[in-house]
Amino acid sequence: MSNTRTQWNVPSSAIAKRAHNPIRQIVDKLKLDPQATKTFISLSVGDPTVFGNFNIDSSANDAIIRQLHSFKHNGYGPAHGTADARQAVADMVTLPEAPVTANDVVLANGCSGALDICVNVLGNPGQNILLPRPGFSLYGSLAAIRSLESRYYNLLPESNWEADLAHMESLIDDQTCAILVNNPSNPCGSVYSREHLQAILALAAKHHVPIIADEIYCDLVFKGNTFYPMASLTSEVPILSVGGLAKKWLVPGWRVGWIVVYDQNNVFEQIREGLLNLSQVILGPNSIVQAALPDILHRTPDQFYQDTITQLEENTQLSMDAVSKIPGLKPVQPQGAMYMMVGIDVSSFEGIKDDVEFSQKLLAEESVLCLPGECFNYPNFIRIVITPTKDRLEEAYQRMAEFCSRHHK
Amino acid sequence: MSNTRTQWNVPSSAIAKRAHNPIRQIVDKLKLDPQATKTFISLSVGDPTVFGNFNIDSSANDAIIRQLHSFKHNGYGPAHGTADARQAVADMVTLPEAPVTANDVVLANGCSGALDICVNVLGNPGQNILLPRPGFSLYGSLAAIRSLESRYYNLLPESNWEADLAHMESLIDDQTCAILVNNPSNPCGSVYSREHLQAILALAAKHHVPIIADEIYCDLVFKGNTFYPMASLTSEVPILSVGGLAKKWLVPGWRVGWIVVYDQNNVFEQIREGLLNLSQVILGPNSIVQAALPDILHRTPDQFYQDTITQLEENTQLSMDAVSKIPGLKPVQPQGAMYMMVGIDVSSFEGIKDDVEFSQKLLAEESVLCLPGECFNYPNFIRIVITPTKDRLEEAYQRMAEFCSRHHK
Ligand SMILES: Cc1ncc(COP(=O)(O)O)c(C=O)c1O
Ligand SMILES: Cc1ncc(COP(=O)(O)O)c(C=O)c1O
Repeated sequence: MSNTRTQWNVPSSAIAKRAHNPIRQIVDKLKLDPQATKTFISLSVGDPTVFGNFNIDSSANDAIIRQLHSFKHNGYGPAHGTADARQAVADMVTLPEAPVTANDVVLANGCSGALDICVNVLGNPGQNILLPRPGFSLYGSLAAIRSLESRYYNLLPESNWEADLAHMESLIDDQTCAILVNNPSNPCGSVYSREHLQAILALAAKHHVPIIADEIYCDLVFKGNTFYPMASLTSEVPILSVGGLAKKWLVPGWRVGWIVVYDQNNVFEQIREGLLNLSQVILGPNSIVQAALPDILHRTPDQFYQDTITQLEENTQLSMDAVSKIPGLKPVQPQGAMYMMVGIDVSSFEGIKDDVEFSQKLLAEESVLCLPGECFNYPNFIRIVITPTKDRLEEAYQRMAEFCSRHHK
Repeated sequence: MSNTRTQWNVPSSAIAKRAHNPIRQIVDKLKLDPQATKTFISLSVGDPTVFGNFNIDSSANDAIIRQLHSFKHNGYGPAHGTADARQAVADMVTLPEAPVTANDVVLANGCSGALDICVNVLGNPGQNILLPRPGFSLYGSLAAIRSLESRYYNLLPESNWEADLAHMESLIDDQTCAILVNNPSNPCGSVYSREHLQAILALAAKHHVPIIADEIYCDLVFKGNTFYPMASLTSEVPILSVGGLAKKWLVPGWRVGWIVVYDQNNVFEQIREGLLNLSQVILGPNSIVQAALPDILHRTPDQFYQDTITQLEENTQLSMDAVSKIPGLKPVQPQGAMYMMVGIDVSSFEGIKDDVEFSQKLLAEESVLCLPGECFNYPNFIRIVITPTKDRLEEAYQRMAEFCSRHHK
């Protein structure tokens, strides 16, 4: 008989050890003082719903309720999404320059689930993937789980967070499975110009590397800026674009995301098959929300989207005005999304050695929480989420100003 | 400069190739004749909602609608589930012999998502996992994705589909990361006795192998049978029990599943951490359904559960009566769940060499679809889903009888 174990010893798998969320680790160090007398203000979570000022349009609720009452959408649908739900996404994202149909859409469990599938389908262990720095931390986690090497290309704060193209190109080799581009950006709040996106696409084309375009903040752009879907700017480079309901429709908890395959030259034949295979494993989003998706995407009144942007713009203005005046802080003007990156001139502060310590002390002394840039691989910045109510934001910046003048040399 | 690609060539990853669903491959061979004059009757999908006779209790809809109207549950919750939702599961599954709290519960995207996390947390590539044969095909897919070797232990139809314990033991070695036990069973419809479950647990204890208990069909058992949660029968063996709303609450499309950690001797310390890590990747089920979960689990009227079982029992009786009379077919009495396995005496049929051909011809000639045993790794059986309406079932068995007498030698 073969060897078996002689005692209980159940280690977790290597993958489970690698799967950790780096933000959690950093945030665990930021503990709120239970003695704190000031009310806690969080500018840390990219969830617009927590303050009560950004709500889904009630027509979306109505669409869900109609579907519940029908008792017709409680069962299993196709693993990659119902035909109607995929059609609704296709109708929204199809481009004259790059038309897509329901067959080019795969639904997933949130944009996170979509990204998970994209990384899984494109990358083999040992390959590398190009990720933005600063960038959303899930990208690196997914790469680590898959034993892909994360190669970070620098974004340049002084150039509106554009990618350093020379640096990006220097990272590409024949084992590069994809370049991930996040536009509009978390954490930068940047919205790229057509020219910059074209320059990235030119690199991808030159080296024959596909693109994963994380466009979850699509259309959340402020006056004077335009969101260009990457797929609208290339007929050559194959693109997996990911999106979802989380941000534009203000329902991150609903867990509805999608992948759109833009592939005008049939480079992605195997990838399409692989996407379907991978979507079979845990099946797609909630069936009731899928049934309501056509209404949510196509019948939410325009006013809802406009109101969201107006509020985001006003909060951005308020944030820029307030934070620009604080000694030692240097905010970078956001153009979209719901974030603002703020540079910290650590040398000008007494007893604050970096962004993590800045966040720690700000929390301890003022009960205001911002994520340190470290969470996005970018030290000496903090990220501010600009979705709280105006009075909360004002109060937070007031306290931040007091904190900074107290610690300023 | 390093080597880069000189042309477009984007293969899918090895994992995406391995992730295929074996049922799809087999079912793709079963094509409905577009010329068929008889109405199509599917006895093939384990989805009780498709015929309109099994509906979620309307109190569950009401619970969802209440949460929608509150506008309070659209945001991100903890990745492993909200405290209230996990508490609701814990209150339902805690056992006097093996008490659990909300901290022992992880929510997931359906029971499939729960199984995915369990396999990922316990297994490293190159290890092996023991799976039932016949069994639910997702198990083997998840193992293949993780590069785990699937070792199938035989279930014995003549002994009420109990596991062949000697065979099971012969498969265990020091690289066995888990034994998966599915009770009540898909596809067998079997419900194991306390003694049989204890015998499996004794093997697990002897060789120090943890158990994954797929108990998604818990409580769907017929008169004279009792469902014993595996965790109620051991104080030694650590168990990950998985379940969900799909079957007992008749909403497979809602994608709510859970993992319950039963671990009285703290063997699973790393595993708990790993479960949390893995749940961070794509986050849990829809937030609205999570908010409604306490009501769904604890306020659905008893009558709903009773009605479901009564209907399943009546359909089982009808199915046994009808199929027992068909020459060449040998149904095995189900004791729970929603399936019946039927042995096919292929030697007694003319021109039908196996279960796949039986299913193919039955579909072609009679427009009745049953999955061949091949889908569950078990040739020369077919699986019948017994959830259609009675008149549909009767019609299907009528056609099956005509088909069999036509082909019987
Ligand atoms: C850039 C980016 N991509 C993806 C996601 C994940 O979206 P979802 O909640 O739909 O999984 C987020 C969430 O904050 C994000 O900021
Ligand atoms: C034995 C078994 N486990 C798990 C599942 C998957 O359940 P879910 O739909 O919640 O993912 C099924 C579905 O048929 C099943 O039969």
